Amino acid sequence: MDSHIAPVELKKAYRLLNHGPTVLVSARHDGVDNVMAAAWACALDFLPPKLTVVLDKSAKTRELVERSGTFVIQVPTAAQLQLTHAVGSHSLAERPDKLREAGVTLFDVEGHDLPFVAGCSGWLACRLVPEPHNQQTYDLFIGEVVAAWSDTRVFRDGHWYFESADPALRSLHYIAGGNFYAIGESLHVDPDAQ
Amino acid sequence: MDSHIAPVELKKAYRLLNHGPTVLVSARHDGVDNVMAAAWACALDFLPPKLTVVLDKSAKTRELVERSGTFVIQVPTAAQLQLTHAVGSHSLAERPDKLREAGVTLFDVEGHDLPFVAGCSGWLACRLVPEPHNQQTYDLFIGEVVAAWSDTRVFRDGHWYFESADPALRSLHYIAGGNFYAIGESLHVDPDAQ
Repeated sequence: MDSHIAPVELKKAYRLLNHGPTVLVSARHDGVDNVMAAAWACALDFLPPKLTVVLDKSAKTRELVERSGTFVIQVPTAAQLQLTHAVGSHSLAERPDKLREAGVTLFDVEGHDLPFVAGCSGWLACRLVPEPHNQQTYDLFIGEVVAAWSDTRVFRDGHWYFESADPALRSLHYIAGGNFYAIGESLHVDPDAQ
Repeated sequence: MDSHIAPVELKKAYRLLNHGPTVLVSARHDGVDNVMAAAWACALDFLPPKLTVVLDKSAKTRELVERSGTFVIQVPTAAQLQLTHAVGSHSLAERPDKLREAGVTLFDVEGHDLPFVAGCSGWLACRLVPEPHNQQTYDLFIGEVVAAWSDTRVFRDGHWYFESADPALRSLHYIAGGNFYAIGESLHVDPDAQ
């Protein structure tokens, strides 16, 4: 594991997703690893932290999630723009060499039999909370976060530092057609004006 | 309705939420209007467009949504930073004058018996898709978007123009403790590199 990576307290893990970044979903089953992009991921609860993610029926990663009951949600960076779009544009079913072509490097974390994508800014290891009706009707999956980590150069002590970190570490926010926005400037509420 | 506001095609409505902004949720029942902030809102489907939003059991707006079966999800702007935090920090139950104190101005749209918040950049009028198990267990509500509008100074022809619009129109992305980020610079995938 990269020396910049450190655990995130579970009670602060929701903050990795609270600003609505596009994420990478990765999963492993029976020797097969895959990674996809998902713009439709969202925090669902604080503690134990839960999240939702929409996984289309055509996605190979969805099958790996359903079979293994585990997955990783990770926050890609501006430096991973091409990688994020590439893993979101092609299915492993049609491109067996998809991960290598997209430039994905996976790493392991002790105690978690899951594929983690190197170069991201945050990682949330999840256990699937089975909800067959949501999964079938809405492609909606619920995960409970069992552990989380961040790249401390941009998220530490429970806070993002996008404003002072390398802009290459900013989160990505997808719109459509290959167009993304990076997260921007920090804004603070004036407590005296409340 | 403000002269800058125009309808958004239903098939493009998901793009108002795709980059993960913090939203305002508004609802009306039996003569009572309310508005709350929600960081946990997310697109769920393209067409008919659907979305999810997490509404805590303590929120008065949740009760209005459950009773009326309709609500509005709107995208507040950087200019509405204080307003967004204020409506997210206090409940109508404890502060009957909450909306006026927060500086909320509501407007009507013909054909929709719903309170729309003036000054936002996008509005999605929703019909609740009742899912009692999700609502009770996870505070998770599903809405089908029946109509959408945008402020054409920042979203038109199905696209955001944050990079050229007034920065005061940028979307807000909440973290915690009164700390937000505005959406930032646009990034485009290089199609030749795919």
